[in-house]
Amino acid sequence: MADGEVKLLDFWPSMFGMRVRIALAEKGVAYEYVDEDLANKSPLLLQMNPIHKKIPVLVHNGKPICESSIIVEYIDEVWNHKAPILPSDPYERAQARFWVDYIDKKLYEPTRKIWGSKGEEQEAGKKEFIGILKQMEEVLGEKAYFGGERLGFVDISLIGFCTWFDVYESFGNFSIEAECPKLMGWVKRCLQNESVSKTLPDPKKVHDFVLQLKKKLGL
Amino acid sequence: MADGEVKLLDFWPSMFGMRVRIALAEKGVAYEYVDEDLANKSPLLLQMNPIHKKIPVLVHNGKPICESSIIVEYIDEVWNHKAPILPSDPYERAQARFWVDYIDKKLYEPTRKIWGSKGEEQEAGKKEFIGILKQMEEVLGEKAYFGGERLGFVDISLIGFCTWFDVYESFGNFSIEAECPKLMGWVKRCLQNESVSKTLPDPKKVHDFVLQLKKKLGL
Repeated sequence: MADGEVKLLDFWPSMFGMRVRIALAEKGVAYEYVDEDLANKSPLLLQMNPIHKKIPVLVHNGKPICESSIIVEYIDEVWNHKAPILPSDPYERAQARFWVDYIDKKLYEPTRKIWGSKGEEQEAGKKEFIGILKQMEEVLGEKAYFGGERLGFVDISLIGFCTWFDVYESFGNFSIEAECPKLMGWVKRCLQNESVSKTLPDPKKVHDFVLQLKKKLGL
Repeated sequence: MADGEVKLLDFWPSMFGMRVRIALAEKGVAYEYVDEDLANKSPLLLQMNPIHKKIPVLVHNGKPICESSIIVEYIDEVWNHKAPILPSDPYERAQARFWVDYIDKKLYEPTRKIWGSKGEEQEAGKKEFIGILKQMEEVLGEKAYFGGERLGFVDISLIGFCTWFDVYESFGNFSIEAECPKLMGWVKRCLQNESVSKTLPDPKKVHDFVLQLKKKLGL
């Protein structure tokens, strides 16, 4: 099908925005990328996502789709001619949705504590974060990707966080590789996909961004 | 298709469990209902949902599906021969998912404040709750149901809360009908569906349950 007019309102260090960028790359969809200034959100963003006022928002032929995991499902349904993202089997789809929902509910808060707090709160965030990664490592098991042989919904939903691993490690003073070696193997496999390697920003750039952000927030 | 062995681990006053019960009724699926004692969860529940340890869990041919909105999508995909729950159009599907996600993220906490707290916290919960209902009323607009002419994903996700309306009104001392008359019209329309009317518990029973629960929790 014709792609129509596709615009992505996003912010480059967002792991949620990265999901959408990877999904669009997987499908080979051409789109206009709009980087938002979150301290001064554009009228278009406020108009397209009046409820949450958050990026990412996909604007397809003038109509907005919000919430990153909902956008990824939308992309998979609209551009269904190649690179299926969700499994076709209903049970496997439900399992993939369950783990994406788990990531959505659990992973962000502890990472925020690791780079944005100190002492006990930071330690608690670190412990929680490692626990979640170990859980995901268990779900991965011996498979190449979460859904099996190729990049899928859970991979796309989790991989953006790896661009922040340097941030977590340096502020939290620990090694993710030492804690979760198999998960780091999965990261490397994901990066062999062009849709991932060409989409994810340089972790050093993310690190610099967080340094500036901490200054700005007075942390 | 044959239904297979279908078991639902649930707790009767749960508005999240009600979603699954309505979806199964819509599809005409026969199933075994297991009411859990949440103060003393069954080994089966802990085994089937080790991550969240929460009801509802649908066990289909021995395999668990967790999280109510994921279960409803699963039911719609497996028993796809009748009564479609999600719209077939990708954009409308994304919109339905967005509003179900909105209900999931926003609605429970303020309702908990209305019956479980007093003073300022209760007032804040009431204000938030009414704001959310008014938002949903705006989304409904002049349509019979959220998706149009028939009961769908958003309706099924929201309607269970109406069995708790008596609770919110009596503890919060306000009238939902006065605040949201159109939404109450929608409640009445939903109740004209047997899948809803035969599934939802008596609001008086829910009210008695909350009275006992408050005593138990020392509120």
